[in-house]
Amino acid sequence: MTDAIRIPERSGTAFRLPKGATLEVIDPMGVQVSDLLAFNADDVGEAISSGRTFDYAETIYLTTGHTLYSNRSRPMLEIVADDVGRHDFLLTPCSYDTFRHFYPDKPLHRGCFGNLAEALAPYGVTEDMIPCAFNCFMNVPVNGETGKLEVLPPISKAGDKIVFRAAMDLVIGLTACSAYSSNGGSFKPIDYRVLP
Amino acid sequence: MTDAIRIPERSGTAFRLPKGATLEVIDPMGVQVSDLLAFNADDVGEAISSGRTFDYAETIYLTTGHTLYSNRSRPMLEIVADDVGRHDFLLTPCSYDTFRHFYPDKPLHRGCFGNLAEALAPYGVTEDMIPCAFNCFMNVPVNGETGKLEVLPPISKAGDKIVFRAAMDLVIGLTACSAYSSNGGSFKPIDYRVLP
Repeated sequence: MTDAIRIPERSGTAFRLPKGATLEVIDPMGVQVSDLLAFNADDVGEAISSGRTFDYAETIYLTTGHTLYSNRSRPMLEIVADDVGRHDFLLTPCSYDTFRHFYPDKPLHRGCFGNLAEALAPYGVTEDMIPCAFNCFMNVPVNGETGKLEVLPPISKAGDKIVFRAAMDLVIGLTACSAYSSNGGSFKPIDYRVLP
Repeated sequence: MTDAIRIPERSGTAFRLPKGATLEVIDPMGVQVSDLLAFNADDVGEAISSGRTFDYAETIYLTTGHTLYSNRSRPMLEIVADDVGRHDFLLTPCSYDTFRHFYPDKPLHRGCFGNLAEALAPYGVTEDMIPCAFNCFMNVPVNGETGKLEVLPPISKAGDKIVFRAAMDLVIGLTACSAYSSNGGSFKPIDYRVLP
């Protein structure tokens, strides 16, 4: 078994994921969020799209059996296993601006947005090209009557994972989330493993 | 009163909306959808963002008093009046691909996506830069328990409108929707009016 790679707390990384390879995103301590982005490795103008995915899946809660689509309506990632069953695809990565808005009394942090922007820059992805992320383990219930959403602590337990298979050659951006509310107020690492 | 401009059925347009100006989007016959996009007129890399808006509004249903934000977390449009109270910001514009997926037995149409891409090209907006649209009058209830969404006919009646005020100089893309399910199976025009 390939060793898992650790993403330290409040940081991010980017790497290539070849078509057909499997990506495991693991919450090693439980109750932590990992923002995931995907871009076509041959043309980073093609990016993961919450709107296309919601349209085709006909649900806002994605889990095993669902496919994450690109802005060009092509399959990027298939969810092939999921220990948790609750993830978010509504919200954009936390950033300086979201820290100012939600945590005005806390120290500023560039957040997942800044971490993703730095990690993805070598692949030609600019800040404006960063879309809504697939936020693994993020727990954002929506009230169907009022539309109101809440950001609650994840229900993931230590060692839980979600597993994706790449439907095309991809560049992946992945974080250990930096925001307070999304991870129950504690910052923790995220592990991931790529299997050919 | 400035005359309203008509967007013919299954078509789209784009125009500048100066900071402080008001945009009325009117459903002249009722039960029709209009996809709205907004870009910073001085730098079209800054675009309307469902994810940033959901984050700050803490709801997926936007109406009077809510602000639509850009991917740079800046206010783009404020909703200042709304006769309908039900719009969608989850889904991407209908396209050749969505027609193939949802209506395989019906004639293909480039949809709001194709109409917006053509209308916005003179402003430097490419297809890959088209994000989730704010879909005026589109009725997409979400089941809060299961996450499942449905595309139902709009609840807008003839003459109903939603009114926006521009918080920056904008380029607006606007359509009369081309999809079958979003408008109850009938294609109708959309009217709009810009007030200084």
